[in-house]
Amino acid sequence: MQFASDNWSGAAPEIVDAVASEAARVGAAYGGSEIDRAVEARFAELFEHEVAVFFVATGSAANGLAMVAVNRPGGVIFCHREAHMIEGECGGVEYLTGGARLLGVDGADGQMDVEALRQAVAGLTPASDHHGQGMAISLTQQTEAGTVYSIDAIREIAAIAKANGLPLHMDGARFANALAQSNATPAEMTWKAGVDMLSFGATKNGCVAAEALVFFDPGQARDMSFLRKRAGQLFSKSRFVAAQLDAYLKDGLWLRLARHSNAMADRLRAGIGRSAKAREAWPTTGNEIFVVVPKSDAKRLAGAGAIFHEWARAEGVRLEAEETMLRLVTSFVTTADEVDLFLEKLG
Amino acid sequence: MQFASDNWSGAAPEIVDAVASEAARVGAAYGGSEIDRAVEARFAELFEHEVAVFFVATGSAANGLAMVAVNRPGGVIFCHREAHMIEGECGGVEYLTGGARLLGVDGADGQMDVEALRQAVAGLTPASDHHGQGMAISLTQQTEAGTVYSIDAIREIAAIAKANGLPLHMDGARFANALAQSNATPAEMTWKAGVDMLSFGATKNGCVAAEALVFFDPGQARDMSFLRKRAGQLFSKSRFVAAQLDAYLKDGLWLRLARHSNAMADRLRAGIGRSAKAREAWPTTGNEIFVVVPKSDAKRLAGAGAIFHEWARAEGVRLEAEETMLRLVTSFVTTADEVDLFLEKLG
Amino acid sequence: MQFASDNWSGAAPEIVDAVASEAARVGAAYGGSEIDRAVEARFAELFEHEVAVFFVATGSAANGLAMVAVNRPGGVIFCHREAHMIEGECGGVEYLTGGARLLGVDGADGQMDVEALRQAVAGLTPASDHHGQGMAISLTQQTEAGTVYSIDAIREIAAIAKANGLPLHMDGARFANALAQSNATPAEMTWKAGVDMLSFGATKNGCVAAEALVFFDPGQARDMSFLRKRAGQLFSKSRFVAAQLDAYLKDGLWLRLARHSNAMADRLRAGIGRSAKAREAWPTTGNEIFVVVPKSDAKRLAGAGAIFHEWARAEGVRLEAEETMLRLVTSFVTTADEVDLFLEKLG
Amino acid sequence: MQFASDNWSGAAPEIVDAVASEAARVGAAYGGSEIDRAVEARFAELFEHEVAVFFVATGSAANGLAMVAVNRPGGVIFCHREAHMIEGECGGVEYLTGGARLLGVDGADGQMDVEALRQAVAGLTPASDHHGQGMAISLTQQTEAGTVYSIDAIREIAAIAKANGLPLHMDGARFANALAQSNATPAEMTWKAGVDMLSFGATKNGCVAAEALVFFDPGQARDMSFLRKRAGQLFSKSRFVAAQLDAYLKDGLWLRLARHSNAMADRLRAGIGRSAKAREAWPTTGNEIFVVVPKSDAKRLAGAGAIFHEWARAEGVRLEAEETMLRLVTSFVTTADEVDLFLEKLG
Repeated sequence: MQFASDNWSGAAPEIVDAVASEAARVGAAYGGSEIDRAVEARFAELFEHEVAVFFVATGSAANGLAMVAVNRPGGVIFCHREAHMIEGECGGVEYLTGGARLLGVDGADGQMDVEALRQAVAGLTPASDHHGQGMAISLTQQTEAGTVYSIDAIREIAAIAKANGLPLHMDGARFANALAQSNATPAEMTWKAGVDMLSFGATKNGCVAAEALVFFDPGQARDMSFLRKRAGQLFSKSRFVAAQLDAYLKDGLWLRLARHSNAMADRLRAGIGRSAKAREAWPTTGNEIFVVVPKSDAKRLAGAGAIFHEWARAEGVRLEAEETMLRLVTSFVTTADEVDLFLEKLG
Repeated sequence: MQFASDNWSGAAPEIVDAVASEAARVGAAYGGSEIDRAVEARFAELFEHEVAVFFVATGSAANGLAMVAVNRPGGVIFCHREAHMIEGECGGVEYLTGGARLLGVDGADGQMDVEALRQAVAGLTPASDHHGQGMAISLTQQTEAGTVYSIDAIREIAAIAKANGLPLHMDGARFANALAQSNATPAEMTWKAGVDMLSFGATKNGCVAAEALVFFDPGQARDMSFLRKRAGQLFSKSRFVAAQLDAYLKDGLWLRLARHSNAMADRLRAGIGRSAKAREAWPTTGNEIFVVVPKSDAKRLAGAGAIFHEWARAEGVRLEAEETMLRLVTSFVTTADEVDLFLEKLG
Repeated sequence: MQFASDNWSGAAPEIVDAVASEAARVGAAYGGSEIDRAVEARFAELFEHEVAVFFVATGSAANGLAMVAVNRPGGVIFCHREAHMIEGECGGVEYLTGGARLLGVDGADGQMDVEALRQAVAGLTPASDHHGQGMAISLTQQTEAGTVYSIDAIREIAAIAKANGLPLHMDGARFANALAQSNATPAEMTWKAGVDMLSFGATKNGCVAAEALVFFDPGQARDMSFLRKRAGQLFSKSRFVAAQLDAYLKDGLWLRLARHSNAMADRLRAGIGRSAKAREAWPTTGNEIFVVVPKSDAKRLAGAGAIFHEWARAEGVRLEAEETMLRLVTSFVTTADEVDLFLEKLG
Repeated sequence: MQFASDNWSGAAPEIVDAVASEAARVGAAYGGSEIDRAVEARFAELFEHEVAVFFVATGSAANGLAMVAVNRPGGVIFCHREAHMIEGECGGVEYLTGGARLLGVDGADGQMDVEALRQAVAGLTPASDHHGQGMAISLTQQTEAGTVYSIDAIREIAAIAKANGLPLHMDGARFANALAQSNATPAEMTWKAGVDMLSFGATKNGCVAAEALVFFDPGQARDMSFLRKRAGQLFSKSRFVAAQLDAYLKDGLWLRLARHSNAMADRLRAGIGRSAKAREAWPTTGNEIFVVVPKSDAKRLAGAGAIFHEWARAEGVRLEAEETMLRLVTSFVTTADEVDLFLEKLG
């Protein structure tokens, strides 16, 4: 009953096989091998667009280097106030950019409110050497709150970005989970909706360690090979990341894994909907669920072997004194039995 | 005939097996799993000393974060003028530290001349807010020139470090190759000789991606969990690095791999010694050999399928107009047949 | 009728005389002259405490370097959401610290609400390598809103700071204006109330350019001579700053200048209280007043020669559609005639 | 007998008068006043070229921000190995740029050897994400060694810069001293010879604190207002710097002051040439002289009231065991009597 995070999962067999095959080969280091090239081509095909792709070690690195690529002095990045960049990266964006600022925008369900975003951007327009200047907008898809921006919502945000000369970044640590539950294509969810840069996360959804920063305008990536190397993020055996991503994207594995994860979350949601003990804190559709339960039940579940995080950070959720909120995350290895056992223990 | 670099090699079967086993498990993320703990214990045992161990993505990251850990304003790091930190990290140390300076110290065979180092350190003593202040000394073991510092040489450097209040860092990207050809224990080559921090590289010698920054004084690592996370270097599935290092260190695998690599280099050196076409640019003992050959022969060898880098950066080597210098690197996958074929083609 | 800012004023005659006298002398550069020492002694006497004093070029530099002195990785600084550090320094604190984060705390009248501060601090307690860690608390005295923290309020904030191991910084760009209207001594308003570092501003109140960063715990200033020089903030002719501060502090000049400035603000406030056209947006006591007027009157006043800034940034002030808010700042050169003329034109 | 540095001097009466006049006025802060504009126009006229001018607090700030303006990841700045940027700014360039590297180029008499520069630049061509990339060339005029680059030498260096796409910066802390002894115009010594950016120093030559960063291509200064403010270098009472520079440039005051300073140095040089006790370490023409004397004489001179620095850093100067090297600097306040007394005491 592991619901702590999808990054507690291991790696999919296909990914392990790819690593094993690559291990038996010799090949050029630092991104110069054939499989590095092949995966770039695969990304271009997947997104139906010219792309520049840079593998990095972590999602935080992808997010941080995206911001370094579009850095401005006195620069301000607009993102949801509970964005991973703000809440979960130990100031990494600020550090890697040498001091860009993250401005948290309000909005329900982990999504920036378009009007609040518009006002925040307007507050730094025109740029001023006292107040600073807008630098980028970043949204997370699937959001940290387990919800998914609609294509229309992304388009609205992109319109604000374009109108203000701000590049639009998508933190796609759980991009697969978002895409797998939508009818959109990868292109429709990204550059066709106005996204310029994507942190494409694969680690949570079945890889060992495979994160990529994708630029839909390769011109914006002009300095990226220097920026990545300088940050200690250029793998010498880059081709092992390539091999993982090659297998991940091949024959739709990535979406199959994400669909399973989402299906397990749906099963969990359905059960919670039936339970008298628990309620969803807000509606979710992805592989993260936020559930309000009595503290005593949380303790009981943990005692029964369920693993999860209690979640402190969620504005706007009203808890009774004896209640607590749990974050439950499913992954490609979650089983129906695990879910059912959890629901049974919950009662 | 791949002699371009040891990081062109794949991964050892034992390492792949460890990744595969770990892939089938579920475990705590971000360094919190049992195998993360177990590997830390393994390091402590290996080095016969309390240690704090931090996995990172690359050797450059290990080097950079080591310097961040001991950062000082106006700080100057003393290292060999051909050190990887200077020559091969795109300014990563300067970037991650927010501006520390690398001061290249002269010395034959890739090793800092002790007297030159002493003078360089003295040049910044006492610290001054105009000139800056010494911050650390870093040596590379095995050096970038394919040589190995003797334990006595390390002790001499450590004495300068201690006398000036400077922490001593060892860039051990090829630590295994250095140790495997010496009679010293890991402890003797590091903390017993006065080393405070070690970038322990395992990627070049048979891992997929496994680098660790080891502190022999855990007190110096006080902020490291923040520093690493902030730099985008904390793997979510940290346990995959741990699993690699566990297998790497188990039953002496790492030294077996390094011994093989060194033996192949010895075979290559012996052949070159017999060749009328080539000569070693300087004496080496590790798994890197620098060879002067006529340009026409370099071209011929490449045409015959040999892979290597021509090496531009080596002060003090005198080349005739028609000559060039090659760097040849062996690894755990280099075969005697490869070496012999190369020697045969060389003539 | 200049009410744009106190930094539109020139310099007091005593200050000019001091500069002229110093100009005729020869003396040691970089802070090594006798007057540099003498001013440090004057500060120690003024604050009745051992201090370490560092002259810098601007208040932003003083604030930024204060934060560099107490820098932590993933560090978060708690200050009012309209603090100058956030609103008016173009990301200088973030830049100089290499990425510390400013967390804006709510509170009426430009003062942090103690409860809101407590919660903000608690939100980062205990420190975590995901969320980051508290690093400092900074309050502005006189606040950016023209109000003054009571000594008790400072003590309450200091108690939170101490309980959480956070140094307490005071941005004293208008420290003189705050002190001049209180019964407190400089010591009581600072270290006796728990303040560790003070950005002591003198430029706005009659100097040419004289800002000092004062540490009440010289141990915290250990690296400051390096930090200041490295930031390009060490004046070669430091003694001209010293000469200004010497004259500024001598015989209470600084408080006389500030009292005049405050008195002019009082006169302005009284007049506004009598006017049917204008109202104070919130109660102020310092030399800044925020006034709501009909837009047409603002335009009319400007046409009549009044100089002021319209103020966009003030949450919680309710303006009618045809209204605007003005910031009016008095200084040591403001005259009663200017004030009266403004009030007459206001009607 | 003050020969320690020209920054031990006070300020010229004309400069003090300008400060006093400005002190009696009210005017726009942060560079918005008329005199700020007027001085910019004066610079344009002086240099016969469109310019963008930014006042900063120190020469180190001017140098550092020049480099920030042309920053590149993995960037390397080529300058003389005894350049002030390397020797005297506590790592300020590295800090402000977030990690650019200063590469010291050899050359006699404080001037980069053109061939050595060419090789250093070639060593980073083409740019590589391992080795980094060239970013700028900086030369100091008058050099730190008291010599002056010929216009032809500047042109040669500029040719290397242009051929490699590198902006050329001139550290003009003593630009006036260089110009005053040449037949060149300000334009000929800068942009006509290929200089893109000039740190224009006026403090050492008679101002209180007046340093300006001048761009001959205002396009390169696009972000500078943000960069300067962010670094805490935007004076609120900017017009006091403007007033100093206005008086400094008016009617050739700056060159008169520098000519006096140079003439005093010439007088000193002539006397040293006649002395049996001392010799110039190398030929100089500016207001800095480097003199080798017996240690006993240095001690004796100091005892007689002469103030100077003993100079440790000068490669290539051969000193006997009982000798030491002094740096003697004249300034606009040095008198013939002071010089003569020094020479008399020297004997």
